[in-house]
Amino acid sequence: MKLVLLSGGSGKRLWPLSNDARSKQFLKVLPSEQGRAMSMVQRVWRQMESLGLADQSFICTSRAQVDIIESQLGDVPVIVEPERRDTFPAVALISAYLLDVVGAPDDEVVAILPVDPYVEEAYFQAIVALERALADSDAEMALLGVRPEFATSKFGYLRVGRDDGGASGVLNVAAFVEKPPIELAEQLLGEGALWNCGVFCFRLGYLRSILQGRGLPWTYSGILDAYGSLPARSFDYEVVEQAAKIVAIAYSGTWKDLGTWETLSEEMEHPFAGIGTAVDCEDTHVINELSIPVVTMGLKNAVVVASPDGVLVAEKGYTSALKDVVKPFSGRPMYEERYWGNYRVFDYSRLADGTEVLVRNVELFSGKNLSYQQHARRTEMWTVVEGSGDLILNNRMTELQPGDVVQVFAGMWHAVRAHDHLVFVEVQRGLSLDEEDIVRRFENWDEIVAHCAVLS
Amino acid sequence: MKLVLLSGGSGKRLWPLSNDARSKQFLKVLPSEQGRAMSMVQRVWRQMESLGLADQSFICTSRAQVDIIESQLGDVPVIVEPERRDTFPAVALISAYLLDVVGAPDDEVVAILPVDPYVEEAYFQAIVALERALADSDAEMALLGVRPEFATSKFGYLRVGRDDGGASGVLNVAAFVEKPPIELAEQLLGEGALWNCGVFCFRLGYLRSILQGRGLPWTYSGILDAYGSLPARSFDYEVVEQAAKIVAIAYSGTWKDLGTWETLSEEMEHPFAGIGTAVDCEDTHVINELSIPVVTMGLKNAVVVASPDGVLVAEKGYTSALKDVVKPFSGRPMYEERYWGNYRVFDYSRLADGTEVLVRNVELFSGKNLSYQQHARRTEMWTVVEGSGDLILNNRMTELQPGDVVQVFAGMWHAVRAHDHLVFVEVQRGLSLDEEDIVRRFENWDEIVAHCAVLS
Repeated sequence: MKLVLLSGGSGKRLWPLSNDARSKQFLKVLPSEQGRAMSMVQRVWRQMESLGLADQSFICTSRAQVDIIESQLGDVPVIVEPERRDTFPAVALISAYLLDVVGAPDDEVVAILPVDPYVEEAYFQAIVALERALADSDAEMALLGVRPEFATSKFGYLRVGRDDGGASGVLNVAAFVEKPPIELAEQLLGEGALWNCGVFCFRLGYLRSILQGRGLPWTYSGILDAYGSLPARSFDYEVVEQAAKIVAIAYSGTWKDLGTWETLSEEMEHPFAGIGTAVDCEDTHVINELSIPVVTMGLKNAVVVASPDGVLVAEKGYTSALKDVVKPFSGRPMYEERYWGNYRVFDYSRLADGTEVLVRNVELFSGKNLSYQQHARRTEMWTVVEGSGDLILNNRMTELQPGDVVQVFAGMWHAVRAHDHLVFVEVQRGLSLDEEDIVRRFENWDEIVAHCAVLS
Repeated sequence: MKLVLLSGGSGKRLWPLSNDARSKQFLKVLPSEQGRAMSMVQRVWRQMESLGLADQSFICTSRAQVDIIESQLGDVPVIVEPERRDTFPAVALISAYLLDVVGAPDDEVVAILPVDPYVEEAYFQAIVALERALADSDAEMALLGVRPEFATSKFGYLRVGRDDGGASGVLNVAAFVEKPPIELAEQLLGEGALWNCGVFCFRLGYLRSILQGRGLPWTYSGILDAYGSLPARSFDYEVVEQAAKIVAIAYSGTWKDLGTWETLSEEMEHPFAGIGTAVDCEDTHVINELSIPVVTMGLKNAVVVASPDGVLVAEKGYTSALKDVVKPFSGRPMYEERYWGNYRVFDYSRLADGTEVLVRNVELFSGKNLSYQQHARRTEMWTVVEGSGDLILNNRMTELQPGDVVQVFAGMWHAVRAHDHLVFVEVQRGLSLDEEDIVRRFENWDEIVAHCAVLS
């Protein structure tokens, strides 16, 4: 059996900590046994490791998240979506990858999981039991249902009955009910319906036959090539709800969607993270990622979050509307974690003549390097703050020490590698500071060095 | 008659906008007719100008505020305290300055005013009437009293009766009552007592005789020299309350102490200043000086202020306690207005080895210059963002254009003057970034140029 975590879109529901480069599952706001905060994805992966499931698990995500996954989880197997579409194309890609690249057989069972549920280990044990449920029934699909603790309109429901096959704990899914009115939700609770938590399990050959039957590409390379033209629809809609027979297993433990500041703050260990203080505040959570203090006084049931991207101050009940509220303010990300380190933007401005100026702090992890690259329309000025490294500028290598200044003019090829943890302040100035002004020659440091050795 | 505005200490009661370099009276948060926000001191000075009083008015302040006064009011006469002590030494200095430097006669009347009352023009007309009240009575001191609108324990009171002299509107001050319990305040209101608003008026010769009588220095140079040893006590305590006869005039218009966010926010024209938005907020004021958005949702009766120095989020009733709350967070000012321009600190950090790193944006107004100076222990890296100017580095002058980079190593003499508005990003790095690491040679640009011409 294979497990695949679907690591979804960026999302602004936890703004200003989540941004286009930092999705909510990567925010380090949950407590861990070691006393250091960890992210949702780190928590889930650690749970899977402790149950011995990590060896058979994969993460499916977009290219934009590959860096931060490596940074947070290390070297884990990642299936990369060529572009961000919906879950149907993603699951098609996953299935073909497991069949064609991993070499899994047609009757291999795969479970697709959201990357960010806040659950107990029993959740994963129930997922493992889905393989048996699929084997013991003639179902095409096996789902995990969460035993509801209360009636709510926030989730979808699975109407279930005893499975005909009679296998222990296996339920028949009779119908799907999308987020119901509260009266219906109460009725569903009485009937023993389950919350649909977005976990589905099927045999690889089943999905291949669906793709073939619909005339869609079904090999890994075929899907990769045609990815942009696959239906941008959810897997639920396109496959799950069309299946002839579906079974489910019920999970009765903790299951939370930490998708809003209101729900996430309930799991935070400390009411105040960062520099500053809270005076006479009740049920109030503060996260301050800035280097200046945040002072809160006399607040009740509020959440205050300050990051390089912005400052949020909200009564907790209002945070579910956040996504739409911050839409007008989605500028460039001011903080990004990458596989090579991270950067924080101190300031970004656009002058009257169109010139853009960006001031940022760049941290490069030991042994990591930036690619050998060139800009057509920007000048970069680096001041090394701490650490040491190798600089390559127009094919010539020199050593970098604290206090050194590097001037990278438009057209100059440049790369840098950290010996120690290397930190520099960079002032970018030019007519275009976007990604399109970067021409990359090599990512790999050895290739960069070999290339320069030939030329010099 | 002379009027002197006492521009007092820095204060943290309006943190994070007020800091050691920016006292509350200089915050541009009040509406003006021109639609641009103005500061308390600008509002008061404009009122005095429109009444024709500015020509006979002075501002007494510490050296730290001279720059910002020039920046906000232009070329106004300033009496500079050698150091910050209390109001008794300050008023002694003012009196001696008017006698010895300005050449005012002994019987010249001076009125001392706080710099930051929020008042109507009638306030200043009542102050002008104090001269007549002093002349028509045999009083040593004439005070302005504010006709109270309600009973409060927040202010001191003047107990008054009809003046024996019988001059119209002139009252006899019978006693001072410091911030009374509310029951006593109500009783005082019934008796016709007035709020003491800190305006006092006397003849210069009267104060000189007090100084002489107490064996204190009484010439301007004498007071300057002995300033640090003068009693650090309030003028109220040392002089006003000891006077044999005191009269008062009542002022009946608006008089507000905008000393807390709660009172100040009432006078703000717009509930939201800066980048961001407020959703479903009531009686809530937001000031955002940062370049990132502030989003507020569902707040009631709150004040949110974000500045380079920090972020405050408070229920308005709590803001009077702010001063003590922020005491532990008083680091270096992150924003300063100076006569030559201003700077904003993007980031300040101290590395493990003690090295300090400061990244800031510096704006130099057209025609202004920084002094010719040298640092022993710091390196500065400038990247010119916009504008143009002259750079002098080790006695040699060159022109600065956008995109230019200047490396100022320890020991190098340097100065810069703006042609246009000159903006540069500066990265300071060194073992000591404080004022003591600066040796200044000349402030005046012509002197700098002449000095360098001789050497080159």
